[in-house]
Amino acid sequence: MTTTTTKTGDPLDRGTLDTLLRKRLFYAPAFEIYGGVSGLYDYGPPGCSLQANIVDAWRRHFVLEEDMLEVDCAMLTPHDVLKTSGHVDKFADWMCKDPKTGEIFRADHIIEEILEARLKCDKEARGATVLEKEDADKKKRKKKLKDTQAIKLDDKVIQEYQDILAKIDNYSGEELGKLIVDHGITSPTTGNPLEPPVLFNLMFQTSIGPTTNHPGYLRPETAQGQFLIFNRLYEFNNLRTPFASASIGKSFRNEISPRSGLLRVREFLMAEIEHFVDPLDKKHPRFPEVADKVSLRFLPRAIQAEGKTTTVEKTIGEVVEEGMVDNETLGYFLARIHLFLKELGIDPEKVRFRQHMPNEMAHYAADCWDAELLTSYGWIECVGCADRSAYDLTVHSNKTGRQLVVRETLEPPKVWEEWDMDVDKKWLGPKFRKDAKKIEDAVARISQEDRERLAALQVAGGKVFVEVEGLGSVELEKVTIEKNEKSVNVREYTPNVIEPSFGIGRILYSLIEHIYWSRPGDEARGVLSFPPKIAPIKILIVPLSNHPCFAPIVTALSAKIRRAGISKRVDDSSASIGKRYARNDELGTPFGITVDFQSLEDGTITLRERDGMKQVRGTQDEVIEIVRGILGGHSTFDDALAKFGEFQGQELDE
Amino acid sequence: MTTTTTKTGDPLDRGTLDTLLRKRLFYAPAFEIYGGVSGLYDYGPPGCSLQANIVDAWRRHFVLEEDMLEVDCAMLTPHDVLKTSGHVDKFADWMCKDPKTGEIFRADHIIEEILEARLKCDKEARGATVLEKEDADKKKRKKKLKDTQAIKLDDKVIQEYQDILAKIDNYSGEELGKLIVDHGITSPTTGNPLEPPVLFNLMFQTSIGPTTNHPGYLRPETAQGQFLIFNRLYEFNNLRTPFASASIGKSFRNEISPRSGLLRVREFLMAEIEHFVDPLDKKHPRFPEVADKVSLRFLPRAIQAEGKTTTVEKTIGEVVEEGMVDNETLGYFLARIHLFLKELGIDPEKVRFRQHMPNEMAHYAADCWDAELLTSYGWIECVGCADRSAYDLTVHSNKTGRQLVVRETLEPPKVWEEWDMDVDKKWLGPKFRKDAKKIEDAVARISQEDRERLAALQVAGGKVFVEVEGLGSVELEKVTIEKNEKSVNVREYTPNVIEPSFGIGRILYSLIEHIYWSRPGDEARGVLSFPPKIAPIKILIVPLSNHPCFAPIVTALSAKIRRAGISKRVDDSSASIGKRYARNDELGTPFGITVDFQSLEDGTITLRERDGMKQVRGTQDEVIEIVRGILGGHSTFDDALAKFGEFQGQELDE
Repeated sequence: MTTTTTKTGDPLDRGTLDTLLRKRLFYAPAFEIYGGVSGLYDYGPPGCSLQANIVDAWRRHFVLEEDMLEVDCAMLTPHDVLKTSGHVDKFADWMCKDPKTGEIFRADHIIEEILEARLKCDKEARGATVLEKEDADKKKRKKKLKDTQAIKLDDKVIQEYQDILAKIDNYSGEELGKLIVDHGITSPTTGNPLEPPVLFNLMFQTSIGPTTNHPGYLRPETAQGQFLIFNRLYEFNNLRTPFASASIGKSFRNEISPRSGLLRVREFLMAEIEHFVDPLDKKHPRFPEVADKVSLRFLPRAIQAEGKTTTVEKTIGEVVEEGMVDNETLGYFLARIHLFLKELGIDPEKVRFRQHMPNEMAHYAADCWDAELLTSYGWIECVGCADRSAYDLTVHSNKTGRQLVVRETLEPPKVWEEWDMDVDKKWLGPKFRKDAKKIEDAVARISQEDRERLAALQVAGGKVFVEVEGLGSVELEKVTIEKNEKSVNVREYTPNVIEPSFGIGRILYSLIEHIYWSRPGDEARGVLSFPPKIAPIKILIVPLSNHPCFAPIVTALSAKIRRAGISKRVDDSSASIGKRYARNDELGTPFGITVDFQSLEDGTITLRERDGMKQVRGTQDEVIEIVRGILGGHSTFDDALAKFGEFQGQELDE
Repeated sequence: MTTTTTKTGDPLDRGTLDTLLRKRLFYAPAFEIYGGVSGLYDYGPPGCSLQANIVDAWRRHFVLEEDMLEVDCAMLTPHDVLKTSGHVDKFADWMCKDPKTGEIFRADHIIEEILEARLKCDKEARGATVLEKEDADKKKRKKKLKDTQAIKLDDKVIQEYQDILAKIDNYSGEELGKLIVDHGITSPTTGNPLEPPVLFNLMFQTSIGPTTNHPGYLRPETAQGQFLIFNRLYEFNNLRTPFASASIGKSFRNEISPRSGLLRVREFLMAEIEHFVDPLDKKHPRFPEVADKVSLRFLPRAIQAEGKTTTVEKTIGEVVEEGMVDNETLGYFLARIHLFLKELGIDPEKVRFRQHMPNEMAHYAADCWDAELLTSYGWIECVGCADRSAYDLTVHSNKTGRQLVVRETLEPPKVWEEWDMDVDKKWLGPKFRKDAKKIEDAVARISQEDRERLAALQVAGGKVFVEVEGLGSVELEKVTIEKNEKSVNVREYTPNVIEPSFGIGRILYSLIEHIYWSRPGDEARGVLSFPPKIAPIKILIVPLSNHPCFAPIVTALSAKIRRAGISKRVDDSSASIGKRYARNDELGTPFGITVDFQSLEDGTITLRERDGMKQVRGTQDEVIEIVRGILGGHSTFDDALAKFGEFQGQELDE
């Protein structure tokens, strides 16, 4: 296990970070005063604002940039839709019950947990110090694990365990059941044997309307709504393709036993794109813009099949060229996802693109690459980029009888020649009566090759016969066989769907781990170095003290910043300036403005940059303009330092 | 019934408007290809963008302007929380069943529908032409109504019906049942008598986790999450009050029979503010900013009690002064709501603030004013502004045993004098043993007045007695009675909550009705005059034709507009410019840019303003700057006309 690091490369202590995040109200367990519900969280003001800024960045990066058609579809979804999409039957996890207590475990998780515990005990028995820190939750649980004595394992067993863990996502229910029996896995709380795994559907079920006749579910993804509205979107787009729809909204997943904080929750914000594309032409017009400019780290199927996790770094142009990534559109989106994550402040060293193994993919996917981010919980899938092929549009179309297709005008029309056989009805009807239809059908089934042969025969003066079931060989006395030109000018096809799907909460949490660090020599004091555009609040206004003489300037300055559309917070508490800035580092606010005695004299204020802690001094308008320039991406704080010079007059007790 | 009008005062034809909104994909019935589910809608691209712009305006107007603490709380809510809040027992409507078919009707709606139908028939019988147009849905239903023959009613009956309709929201279940029997109301589909009304809870129920032990609901409002997280918010706000939290998110209501399009749906976006305030001091520091500047139209309780709907127009300062609106905070928010609606483009003539009647209020409200907007469906509650008193915090605190209070430091501390009586324990214990406690308790119950009297008695040399149950009169031989100074420096109280609660979907739909009109002489051609900031898309780019020579300019211009952060759409279809602008009027896009042959020569383009259809001509940068200025609120299109002059060169076929 690698140790996760902070932004500055020090070991990351998740417990300390968690404490910071809860103290500063980035998030809190939902319904906390009622004891909480696992897998449900509330975002407090900084978390909520951070989430809104990530969503805003996403909308600009994808929706606005590519003129996507954003929609907002219903979350409540009737049973029939999700039955057709396959979710009623296949959106499920395997769970095991402790028959004596009724406690329920997710089958793969319990195997994972126990095997990992045994491996750790083995390490301890071998005298290795297990450095990794654990959060309180896991510790509590660990105490209960029955087999945490320091037992040394056979080298062969270690290898076997490691193989199982590497493939833990890929086992069937039966296989999981066998692993549980073979490896003597029992309930970690009671030591009781577990019942064999059974499927548990992960959708929240409810009933729509006053009767019980309309069962429904909370959507497990935003995608289905976008598929069902396809025809209307296609029309809205003036019947042009390819095009993409997009949707930002909550989805739901009734996890069996949610763990891992914000990473595995029952209610989560997703941002999903459905790009509808011609299955015969998956080129992307903007692919050249990224082809040789963007390099990604790939973990393709072939490497995983060897049981390895070494990544290869290549440009997106190369991997599409060599076929590892199937097509330009898929490749284009992988590159755009990478650029988006970078824009948010994600550490590029902690991103990899992993291809799904065939047996691991969702039931609808033809190919899938995950953008995984490295966190203290391991590599976490944060963005999925799946080729759903024509699966969804086809099944919904079959079920409802409504066509969900693209009609492409062929210019020039497709032209070809075909042999037609035309039996004279005036001869056929009176002669064969009720058998006439049978003969016509038999003629219709004659192949092009046979028709060509029969035509030649006829020209040569031969007679034309057709075999008809129940009638034997029938002579077609009056039949015309000729070659005609045919043409169609419309091609109809069900588009394929490339789906980049973002778990906003997972990205948000991973981002926090990536940009978290502590000032050297002051490890207890965390800093969250969000890029200014993404930071929850942009400016902290700090009067030197809570003396009333500063109030008028603070009020006027606040109003001015508000009018500039920049979010700010005032901290006029009695804590020292250093303490207030430290509080603020924890909130990740990029700029601090100090109002001091000089401000009272000449109206100037100081602007402090969070990461470097350097300051400049200027008028209110100058300072706001600096911040606006940085937020707009036109300039940097170094530009301001160059222009205004570093200000070092203030005595700060940091 | 008044006829609803368009923005320009013509009669509003809802059918035509609905057709426009569906054609332009503002919204569509959700799951349409599966036959749809009533009360569930999808927003298409223009609707989705309009919704996002309204939410953005709301966030700026309320959250940023007042430094509110925005949170994002879980939608899935455990049973206990909503049992405590009262929703499990009281969030319900009365429904009646047709016992033969099982069809279910909302009791108040069915009475309303049938009485209104009878009144209309009466009018027809009296020879009046019933002008009001009806949408297709209602027409279909109307055909089925059994009693729509033109029957004349007694004047007395008419009056009775009108009284019932005016109070239809205020009846109990029993009263509704009586009305159904007394007025012979039967199923409009079958004519069968209806079963007496029973309560139907309007929350969607589900089960959280893999067992059935944790029932939960989809939240019926965002408010509860904000109450439960109160302590953490209070702490986040550095223990300062008053403060407000805010939340934007979906809520759910399992309507018995949804009607009225977007106005009564099962899943809806809400924006709610919970302003926590001292019950003894509901002043608001920013009230003076609105007191005499904002006039509203009020429909207070007193007027409604007389059966009238005439409004009174007064400043918010006046009505708070005279007590009609209870306090400054409530008044301040009513004024801010009014200003917000105005900013969106709501017609101020079609807004009124109606006070709830006592029996009509939600179970938690102490007082409530609704901002109602006039639409073709009548006056619709779009914003509620309720004083929820300390109800919610109190019930949750009682249930969980967790204090949800504000602790106010009293400066100076509250000081008062009190008579203490101190019985010498060394005398009491040995003498009375197990009865000592009884005597102490009896002493503790002696009132301040009696203590003062006893002190005087003691000073005068008298003996002090106390009556003790079971012991009779006991002489206190060793007791000190003296007056002492007391003080407390913390006051603890449960804050009251003022809650402005916005139904975003209802506001969105009402806004569309308010800003919809048609060009004179071209009634079929609708225009949606959204204010530029609110409009779904800001600019339509229209090349003169779809000739490829225009493509490079269109592409470059698109990129430039995108970089300026302005949303745009290109229409390079082969339709005439006039037709393309007409399409665009229907989407409410405020600006059109035409790229013509002159653009190819000198790079200039024309900018057309939607409402006045006037144009100016300038360089790309000039034109983008004009739009940016208008969107930022710094200038108007008239300024641009003054600066650049009106451009009339183009021949447009409108």
